[in-house]
Amino acid sequence: MGRLVMKFGGTSVANIERIRNVAQHVKREVDAGHDVAVVVSAMSGKTNELVAWATETSPLHDAREYDAIVASGEQVTSGLLAIALQALGIQARSWQGWQIPIQTSDAHASARITGIDGAELIKRFKERREVAVIAGFQGIHEGTGRITTLGRGGSDTSAVAIAAAIHADRCDIYTDVDGVYTTDPRVVPKAKRLEKVAFEEMLEMASLGAKVLQVRSVELGMVHNVPVFVRSSFDKPEDIDPHGTPPGTLICSEEEIMESQVVTGIAFSKDEAQISVRHIEDKPGIAAAIFGPLADASINVDMIVQNVSEDGKYTDLTFTVPASEYTRAKDTITRAKDKIGYKAMDSATDVAKVSVIGIGMRSHAGVAAQAFKALSERNINIRAITTSEIKFSLLIDAAYTELAVRTLHTLYGLDQA
Amino acid sequence: MGRLVMKFGGTSVANIERIRNVAQHVKREVDAGHDVAVVVSAMSGKTNELVAWATETSPLHDAREYDAIVASGEQVTSGLLAIALQALGIQARSWQGWQIPIQTSDAHASARITGIDGAELIKRFKERREVAVIAGFQGIHEGTGRITTLGRGGSDTSAVAIAAAIHADRCDIYTDVDGVYTTDPRVVPKAKRLEKVAFEEMLEMASLGAKVLQVRSVELGMVHNVPVFVRSSFDKPEDIDPHGTPPGTLICSEEEIMESQVVTGIAFSKDEAQISVRHIEDKPGIAAAIFGPLADASINVDMIVQNVSEDGKYTDLTFTVPASEYTRAKDTITRAKDKIGYKAMDSATDVAKVSVIGIGMRSHAGVAAQAFKALSERNINIRAITTSEIKFSLLIDAAYTELAVRTLHTLYGLDQA
Repeated sequence: MGRLVMKFGGTSVANIERIRNVAQHVKREVDAGHDVAVVVSAMSGKTNELVAWATETSPLHDAREYDAIVASGEQVTSGLLAIALQALGIQARSWQGWQIPIQTSDAHASARITGIDGAELIKRFKERREVAVIAGFQGIHEGTGRITTLGRGGSDTSAVAIAAAIHADRCDIYTDVDGVYTTDPRVVPKAKRLEKVAFEEMLEMASLGAKVLQVRSVELGMVHNVPVFVRSSFDKPEDIDPHGTPPGTLICSEEEIMESQVVTGIAFSKDEAQISVRHIEDKPGIAAAIFGPLADASINVDMIVQNVSEDGKYTDLTFTVPASEYTRAKDTITRAKDKIGYKAMDSATDVAKVSVIGIGMRSHAGVAAQAFKALSERNINIRAITTSEIKFSLLIDAAYTELAVRTLHTLYGLDQA
Repeated sequence: MGRLVMKFGGTSVANIERIRNVAQHVKREVDAGHDVAVVVSAMSGKTNELVAWATETSPLHDAREYDAIVASGEQVTSGLLAIALQALGIQARSWQGWQIPIQTSDAHASARITGIDGAELIKRFKERREVAVIAGFQGIHEGTGRITTLGRGGSDTSAVAIAAAIHADRCDIYTDVDGVYTTDPRVVPKAKRLEKVAFEEMLEMASLGAKVLQVRSVELGMVHNVPVFVRSSFDKPEDIDPHGTPPGTLICSEEEIMESQVVTGIAFSKDEAQISVRHIEDKPGIAAAIFGPLADASINVDMIVQNVSEDGKYTDLTFTVPASEYTRAKDTITRAKDKIGYKAMDSATDVAKVSVIGIGMRSHAGVAAQAFKALSERNINIRAITTSEIKFSLLIDAAYTELAVRTLHTLYGLDQA
């Protein structure tokens, strides 16, 4: 007997047949004796259709109206799933964000959840074992009484926030993959599903492009210590033993991972561009002169590498930006040339970032050194290096991305047996 | 300077181009200095799509979930129109039923409006001339906090109720026809648009099949004395003089119609069936014995004709039902034969009901007599007659429907010059 949040994304509720399949998943957990809150996204394609209408009406539209429009997608799914559950003889009702309410900031289209009162949902679990079917992605700003949305992928965040509010034992995220892998299986066929990942590791993986979960939902899970279980909605409900251990990946606090691997996963990103600014004065304020204009232009800078200068006078500085912002970034630096006072700028777009992530790194020395050696044996040149407590990232020529990822995957013992 | 409610149905907001057209209509009235509240339906086809999903999920679905699902259609339109208005430089915001709130009973899928607080909308008119764009068809039951809908055509009712709540001078119903006609122009090409119709007359016309307005909206207009103006949304906004008198029909109280016609319009319905029960005892309880079983079977009985018997002992009784319920009605009467104690039953499906409507009838004798004479001159047999204060209805052979309607239309001086 436990309390569970089950979250289903757009492809899992794409049509009535799929919604009925979701109802069977929910029934399985209810039959096993659990209190269940379900969080649903819009039927796949619906949000895009609604966004397109808003944009066609006016490209620069009021975000408050945009939110009222797009929130309707989740409203429909929540009602349909409630009906599908009732048809299976399960007590269920739909909840819109404003009905619970899920309170948020007034940053329309990218609001943050500020509070959820789970008392009524818990009361209904106790009194009549009622399943709560909650429209994800949406909330209400109580000051204005208007509908808000949390931004793309926001239903993951809704699910984890609801789980915290009702003190759920676990938040199950049903998705179109069966868990989090050590790296992209399309690049490394030997990639294996992780049984457990620490929140901190998942944060690094999610922000580095393992697009299984929205980053904010992982943050929220970490803050409120809600174990998040990523699993497949394509598993047949009747094949699953509710008392067994289904395939999936548990994202949880570090303490719950008995023997953490030194390295948990390898992430990579090819959409990178590198810009190096040569022969700049090594003095206070020089970094601000470079990154101030980039921030003003809303350009996301990722890696920044500056070495200690040999002569104490001049140095070089390298940074990376998303490939899509490469031209704007170069223009920005060129326009700021007089202020920065650099001698030359060189740049490259055919670069990739490979990151090695693992909580175990903290207590193991020489993890990065192994990588440098293995890559050099493959003649892969490392253009830049950055490190943090639980990861290190390497900038390399894009052509070597797959080779580098496979080499590191084998090196750190991640290959499937 | 006045206050106006403008209501647009599904075909008027069918796509973004049509929504932009609606915005131009609204702009015209705002520019003329009016306070404006707009009530919108779902984009045409959307409600049907949502209803079909609910039914596909479960034919016998929870009406509360049905309401949450279908109310989303109006939510989308209200947001899109608010955006379209803002793009024209007009201050506007969308309102869902629960935001105003539009309070209703908890009769889900056919709720009745119980109260609307117009204070906030009026405050915004005064403070910032903000146009209120209101999702029609929907409300909230405050006891449960759940979304309700008013039943098909409910947006008309929303519009008139909002008009009453904000003390509007007029409620404009934009539709795909340019007003209410003396009869169906497809049958009588000389039918003309009525400038004004009394609420009572419109009630008779609406319930008799002139499907321009939902009956409940006319009742509401009558109770709260809100003039309702039926006009076309296909008129080009730029061609309309906001200070002039646009084409349309004003539905208003009798007092505002200076010289009322004796006859205002001719309604007709071909979907009728007639059942006559012959040689029944003329005694108390006999009508109950016939209509009790029909009511139990939820069969709508319309006309009922019973004449005074000649001998004080036996009489005949005739009634009509919708053609779709003919077989069930006959079966019901046959099963009750012993209780009723009739000698014979005869029936016909090829019958039509023609109704002549006019407030002026009250003060003019012999209006019906003129009809009897004119129809007999055309050899049209009258099978049954019923009368009320402001209308009389004739049951005739269906084959003569068009001829009868045209004859009466000319007789009462309704033909276009």
